[in-house]
Amino acid sequence: MLAESVHYRSDDPPDQVASKLLAVNLSDLAAKGARPVGALLGYTLGDEAWDRAFAAGLRADLQAYSLPLLGGDTISTGGPRTLSLTLIGEVRGPAVPSRSGARPGNDLWVSGTIGDAGAGLDMLNGILARNDFLIDRYRLPRPRLQGGQALGAIVSAMMDVSDGLLIDASRMARASLVNIAIDLDAIPLSPAFRDALGDDRAAQMRAATAGDDYELLFTAHPAARNNIAEIGERLALPLTRVGHCGDGTGLSLTDAAGPVPLPDNLGWEHVSG
Amino acid sequence: MLAESVHYRSDDPPDQVASKLLAVNLSDLAAKGARPVGALLGYTLGDEAWDRAFAAGLRADLQAYSLPLLGGDTISTGGPRTLSLTLIGEVRGPAVPSRSGARPGNDLWVSGTIGDAGAGLDMLNGILARNDFLIDRYRLPRPRLQGGQALGAIVSAMMDVSDGLLIDASRMARASLVNIAIDLDAIPLSPAFRDALGDDRAAQMRAATAGDDYELLFTAHPAARNNIAEIGERLALPLTRVGHCGDGTGLSLTDAAGPVPLPDNLGWEHVSG
Repeated sequence: MLAESVHYRSDDPPDQVASKLLAVNLSDLAAKGARPVGALLGYTLGDEAWDRAFAAGLRADLQAYSLPLLGGDTISTGGPRTLSLTLIGEVRGPAVPSRSGARPGNDLWVSGTIGDAGAGLDMLNGILARNDFLIDRYRLPRPRLQGGQALGAIVSAMMDVSDGLLIDASRMARASLVNIAIDLDAIPLSPAFRDALGDDRAAQMRAATAGDDYELLFTAHPAARNNIAEIGERLALPLTRVGHCGDGTGLSLTDAAGPVPLPDNLGWEHVSG
Repeated sequence: MLAESVHYRSDDPPDQVASKLLAVNLSDLAAKGARPVGALLGYTLGDEAWDRAFAAGLRADLQAYSLPLLGGDTISTGGPRTLSLTLIGEVRGPAVPSRSGARPGNDLWVSGTIGDAGAGLDMLNGILARNDFLIDRYRLPRPRLQGGQALGAIVSAMMDVSDGLLIDASRMARASLVNIAIDLDAIPLSPAFRDALGDDRAAQMRAATAGDDYELLFTAHPAARNNIAEIGERLALPLTRVGHCGDGTGLSLTDAAGPVPLPDNLGWEHVSG
């Protein structure tokens, strides 16, 4: 669900809101190794021009994924909009492990590059000088559906990174009852990100706590390293080992010199009381 | 989707709101001849006592249908609540016809009795003296899942009656490009409804334009009459022939004396511009 003035700004372009609504859901399916098969939309009607632009944007995005809109509901409330999308997906073969399957000794991996969308949002907000690649990474997220489907049979745990690498990794650690240690120097940063923000500790932390990555975060036994590398090459999708799981609980950070303290804010927290 | 202050009142009991949210969806599945297999909830958090009572009510209702809550999302907005439920159902055998399959010469049928829930709501609102049966018909709708599954292979068109018999029949007529003629004297009224409101023309019209029936409205070839009667007996579900389809368009009403003018208001209209 996305709520106006909470999850998006009233002046955000409607087609971008549609893209985000779809991407959040597609990314969840990707992390389940699922192929999306249909969508149902719960939509609050409002300003008609906005409605039309949203519908056009959603239609284009759904077509890009060959995804039929199966049904849904529209309501009128007079208040802020609430947009609710449900995607149905299909998994062939055994169910893909949830975020709770990480085991001590497993490697921690992430797909793609981290922090691009957060930098793109800062650019849209006028905080950073604009770079089209990074803005597109925010505006046009590309959930890793093929990656999730290919990795599903190999991983011990998988989820998507949508609220920030550190906070999502900490959720995986909590669900799996393991400690997850992340090597900050291993976090994959795009050339555009490095150009805009560098790659020092502050830039690493900014990337690792920014939201909207829609990348895959997964764990696997070290014996699967070659397999995973082959999948990454076949899909032209960078898959990077960024840490490992150990006994204990919670999240810890390291660099070449040793332990690094956790930042105060690990990422985006959804629920206010 | 149900929106606070639009589809339910802020002071409605939360478990009753949960029942309605589920019933609306179950009734849609019933009309598709589907067996419900799972639910996904999009929920706006608010007052915690209300949240708890809603959750307890929804849990009890889902258990009554052996229906797992597969997932969903919660948000906080600070504004009025929006509740969004998606049900997934399964149809074994061929797809059940939609509302657009009615053909000239078909009979028009309805399940159960009509108008009970509307009378029950009037009782809750203090407009009528209370009757527990009718109030329960409003508070605890019983979507006709078994009926829909049994009838799916026989009907030419099927939908649920949720906004009022007349308005829903007019929608079927429009979707099927036929005229639908309803015999007002044939509309099935419960003994409790007759006790409370009588069965004169005003009472018939009140029943036929009230919402929240969650009964099945369907058409079938006259050759299916015996089959339909057998299904009704087997399920102890009254199935009543209330009209027929003909060439032309729109809805028309009759009684023993001949044509009857349509009322100004056919039922509940959802969408305001």
